[in-house]
Amino acid sequence: MPHFWHLWLIGCTWTDWPFLFLQFGQFIFPPEKALPYREAAQVSRFLDPFFDPRRGNAKRVEFILRPVMIPGERGYRGDKTMPERAELQKMAQKLRRHSVEMTTASASGHPTTCLSTAEILSTLFFQEMRWDPKAPYARNVDTFVLSKGHAAPILWAALKEAGAIDDDLLRLRKFDSTLEGHPTPRNPWVRVATGSLGQGLSCAAGMALARRQDGITARIYCLMGDGESAEGSVWEAAQFAAHNQLDNICALVDVNGLGQSGATMPMHNVESYLAKFVSFGWHAISVDGHDIDELLQAFEGARNTTDRPTAIICKTEKGKGFSLVEGKDGWHGKPFKKDGTFEKALEEFGDTDITLEVEPRHIETQTLPESAFSLDDPALAPTYKEEDMAATRQGYGSALAKLGAICPDVMALDGDTKNSTYSEKFKIAHPDRFVECFIAEQNMAGVALGLAVEGKIPFASTFACFLSRAYDQLRMSVYSRPHHLVINGSHVGVSIGEDGPSQMGLEDLAMFRALIGTTVLYPGDAVAAERLTCAAALTPGIVYLRSSRPKTRVLYKNEEMFPIGGSKTWGDGTDATIVAAGITLHEALEAQKLLKQNDIHVRVIDAYSIKPIDEETLKTAARETREVITVEDHSACGGLGEAVASVIGSVKILAIREIPRSGKPDELLDKYGINRRAIVEAVRERLGK
Amino acid sequence: MPHFWHLWLIGCTWTDWPFLFLQFGQFIFPPEKALPYREAAQVSRFLDPFFDPRRGNAKRVEFILRPVMIPGERGYRGDKTMPERAELQKMAQKLRRHSVEMTTASASGHPTTCLSTAEILSTLFFQEMRWDPKAPYARNVDTFVLSKGHAAPILWAALKEAGAIDDDLLRLRKFDSTLEGHPTPRNPWVRVATGSLGQGLSCAAGMALARRQDGITARIYCLMGDGESAEGSVWEAAQFAAHNQLDNICALVDVNGLGQSGATMPMHNVESYLAKFVSFGWHAISVDGHDIDELLQAFEGARNTTDRPTAIICKTEKGKGFSLVEGKDGWHGKPFKKDGTFEKALEEFGDTDITLEVEPRHIETQTLPESAFSLDDPALAPTYKEEDMAATRQGYGSALAKLGAICPDVMALDGDTKNSTYSEKFKIAHPDRFVECFIAEQNMAGVALGLAVEGKIPFASTFACFLSRAYDQLRMSVYSRPHHLVINGSHVGVSIGEDGPSQMGLEDLAMFRALIGTTVLYPGDAVAAERLTCAAALTPGIVYLRSSRPKTRVLYKNEEMFPIGGSKTWGDGTDATIVAAGITLHEALEAQKLLKQNDIHVRVIDAYSIKPIDEETLKTAARETREVITVEDHSACGGLGEAVASVIGSVKILAIREIPRSGKPDELLDKYGINRRAIVEAVRERLGK
Repeated sequence: MPHFWHLWLIGCTWTDWPFLFLQFGQFIFPPEKALPYREAAQVSRFLDPFFDPRRGNAKRVEFILRPVMIPGERGYRGDKTMPERAELQKMAQKLRRHSVEMTTASASGHPTTCLSTAEILSTLFFQEMRWDPKAPYARNVDTFVLSKGHAAPILWAALKEAGAIDDDLLRLRKFDSTLEGHPTPRNPWVRVATGSLGQGLSCAAGMALARRQDGITARIYCLMGDGESAEGSVWEAAQFAAHNQLDNICALVDVNGLGQSGATMPMHNVESYLAKFVSFGWHAISVDGHDIDELLQAFEGARNTTDRPTAIICKTEKGKGFSLVEGKDGWHGKPFKKDGTFEKALEEFGDTDITLEVEPRHIETQTLPESAFSLDDPALAPTYKEEDMAATRQGYGSALAKLGAICPDVMALDGDTKNSTYSEKFKIAHPDRFVECFIAEQNMAGVALGLAVEGKIPFASTFACFLSRAYDQLRMSVYSRPHHLVINGSHVGVSIGEDGPSQMGLEDLAMFRALIGTTVLYPGDAVAAERLTCAAALTPGIVYLRSSRPKTRVLYKNEEMFPIGGSKTWGDGTDATIVAAGITLHEALEAQKLLKQNDIHVRVIDAYSIKPIDEETLKTAARETREVITVEDHSACGGLGEAVASVIGSVKILAIREIPRSGKPDELLDKYGINRRAIVEAVRERLGK
Repeated sequence: MPHFWHLWLIGCTWTDWPFLFLQFGQFIFPPEKALPYREAAQVSRFLDPFFDPRRGNAKRVEFILRPVMIPGERGYRGDKTMPERAELQKMAQKLRRHSVEMTTASASGHPTTCLSTAEILSTLFFQEMRWDPKAPYARNVDTFVLSKGHAAPILWAALKEAGAIDDDLLRLRKFDSTLEGHPTPRNPWVRVATGSLGQGLSCAAGMALARRQDGITARIYCLMGDGESAEGSVWEAAQFAAHNQLDNICALVDVNGLGQSGATMPMHNVESYLAKFVSFGWHAISVDGHDIDELLQAFEGARNTTDRPTAIICKTEKGKGFSLVEGKDGWHGKPFKKDGTFEKALEEFGDTDITLEVEPRHIETQTLPESAFSLDDPALAPTYKEEDMAATRQGYGSALAKLGAICPDVMALDGDTKNSTYSEKFKIAHPDRFVECFIAEQNMAGVALGLAVEGKIPFASTFACFLSRAYDQLRMSVYSRPHHLVINGSHVGVSIGEDGPSQMGLEDLAMFRALIGTTVLYPGDAVAAERLTCAAALTPGIVYLRSSRPKTRVLYKNEEMFPIGGSKTWGDGTDATIVAAGITLHEALEAQKLLKQNDIHVRVIDAYSIKPIDEETLKTAARETREVITVEDHSACGGLGEAVASVIGSVKILAIREIPRSGKPDELLDKYGINRRAIVEAVRERLGK
């Protein structure tokens, strides 16, 4: 079947357009509109020379070939004939069957939650979405985000039926299976871990933004529950997506009316959801979530909506398809027992003998340039003069702006504090890569994660205290395993002064240290702030950088480097060691001078790398000096002092140190080394018996 | 001026009503409607005998005398003649003048934010609100919550003008002043600390709920910013208030269109705010926020609205009244300098020579019964049998239900997990004191705080991991200094099993330990869980109780008591000490047995009180045994292990250990013991020189 294409020209600067106009005379103003063209691949090749990577366009201009919808048909298709309505319905029943079999086999999980979504998954995975079951990491395909993570079984079932995974579905939630209780990237098809509700839409928004940034028109489909729509983070994301006109997002709300422990607030009041999304600037459509045709029509409506995202409000029944539980409270998270209940469910699902092939459909894109740089790059060197006064937050902003110039993947986000955190410096230098998230920190964290899983290096900043607002999102980010995600918290501790305790970050070190696998940095001067900001971009995983409000003296030379896990020692006194970081480093150095006047000789350790901490240097100092004193502008619990105490003290701490997974409780206690076996081993090792 | 009263009969059970009907024949169905009556005080005395405290009505039935609005007048008034429009306008100008003078004097603060709210404050404090400037702690008066906490100066100004405080306004933000940079209860008129945006409405909802619970009709006025309306927590609160029909709440949104670092998303699009509030189930009115008449009319509209809260959307200009800054970006948080700017502002405010007296207006209430109980009360004793298997979360639920029976102030909240946390047991026993907060943990924490500051003893529960969602609210709760506020986090650690990492509380100990002044409890068996749950209700401030999912053996006898700050030692081995808590206590006890078989004798310490921790017992154990090993189902940072390491180790930790306040950075570093002076003292003390 011959078909037409849209050629999308996205992200071109306006100055490029007059030239293109002369070449084709066919594009439509404004630039983001489509240019119909038959031989798109040729066009792409033809246009290539006009975009000079040295002019900075290579990254931002993408030639996306996208099949055009053909009026009168359920268009938007490749060459393959699409499944019939009845086939999709049968597939929905098969997905129901799988969900029930899986949860019964694992004797845990949420079958009724899956049952309400079966038609949504069936239409999305087997008709609407353009994706390739053989390419889990492709960016140029439509992507599915399961915000209601407890419906994981039906996601695994759909992936299996589509040939995207070959796991044994009945090993759901088993210790060595990628089919975890809630989705995590242990399974290659999961971009962001979900299961803490209300977070998927922010991540979807970040992904949608990254794709628009890179000129990729592939869409994001985000399935949410109605219960989770009570989370404020959903409305932060809704406002953000509308404000940024993310029309590549299609959110689906599974309104089954029941939460975990009872009915939701709006129950089946679909109008309430419609009104909310519309008032937040969305296009919203309501459908019978069990009607294949209504769903497909709604998807088409979503695709044809420009300038705003679309929410499809799906009225469903929890437990749909099994009369014993359909629409009934009290069945959340309860698998069916093999006492006749399970068998009855399968019987009611009827004939599920169907196989549907998913046509691989990539949306062609150019390869993006690599974002490689070295910390030695002269463009990154700080340029302070001796005895300059500068706040570490200023160092953060300066370095970020420089980093943006040599690393096109770097993006900056802020929560309406850019003039305080100095992320504004990045915005001024690279306005197209700055994302204003307004006063909505949860969404900012989610968007940052969404950008990160799409290959960006996001730096998200606000006052450190307000990061506590996003702690759940940050926690879940750990489980999403982004390559790079940098969080900056400024205005830490009592040293902010007059604004009072509400604005003081006093728990941020504890927060970020407690997250598994994170890196926590706390520069003591502007040079360290610049160097550590750059280092953060190359450090794998989640990096937290703590910056201070007051201007302080520049202590280090511009060429000084600050390796992660290191420290700087000032002096070699043996009376005592003072371990400090950030603002207290300056106090400690002053104290060192004062003590010297009394013939007390101390060394000061600048513990700029709080996690990992420089265990060796600290242990040596503890051996070589009589006393160790830590000083920090932070709560006494969970910060620098305890980090030091835990490495130089004699206490052996058995605790969780790696990202855990699904499994039986006993298996997990053993695996992560906190059960009787691990205790016995630790005691014997310590005692040498 | 003679006036009429409404007699409100609130919370009567339906079975009481037929009798009342015979007595008066005048009340209006349903029970919560008003009964007009002239001699209301007499009625109250007359009705008293019909309500028998032993039938449980005494607490729930309140006789509220409330002035009736008189049609045709701006009613709702006491005897005093209300100020004229021009007087209120002049007062607004005077409040502007104060705000500018205060912020200029302190050279910090947010004058333009205050200027947009001047008419709102003037009409509220000098006409609309029924309050008594001499009674800051009264419950039976209308109460103001300043959610946009950075407008603190104009709040202090209004209080000063009303004669409620006699502080020197020009000492704003000074170290020893109660006029902090953002409102805290250091000033007696502040119920909840604000300054982290988007939190006031949840607190207002909690206060409104507590008042309805106690039959107090006094209203809550909550002033929010437009920028903070981007916070999802606002919409969690909005949904909660509408769902609970809290018509005693009037929210005001100061739509000045500007945030800290630029325009807000909807800017001056008042309709967008109206649509949002209406879609969330509110009555919403838009006004010119600088028009006294429109404001007063809107207040009346709010008062006359039943069954739903009212939002008044006030279109304003940031910096209103001073032409240099009015409606201009770039002036957030910038006091005016005395370079002509300050002087120009005062000049533009014009004649501000006015004094308005606020008539003290209490809303009469009966005294509420005292909620006193003893932990020895036999009604609280656990009733487990030896070798019973029970989860600590079950112990929490059982104790909570028992506590509810003897302590009428106890209320329980849950975030749609009541059947998992076992708070459901409380709901079954005391349905009228259970608050379902659905999947919106931020709002749950705010509502709990609101209940707490109104004298309730709230117990709020959900999965420990989801408390991370409300960490900012919990942080701010510390600064609100509630008498009692208990948070329960269940399903902690990897021991939850199959659900996977998204549902595992691995950071909660670090979170709650880092908050200043909190108590952190972690029971090892169901008996300890029951005892500690009860103890939590009597422990001042914020208490966190950590409970586990799996059933474990009952270890302690029913009569065992668990004092806060204590521990339990199992055995007296001297080879090693194993410090454990919760699920790992059971593993440690098993390890103890296994080690004994190899002639290794250890003692096990059940550190059920994680904060404060039993320092003395731990130090003794460290002295008496060769090795100390801690084991916890929690991240390695900020939990039990570091708590132990910080007390038995040799590291002296200087850090923030009490709630800080506004002041100059140097003053604060000194006050909280982290500056050069404190370091020098610590070193000299440790070295004995």
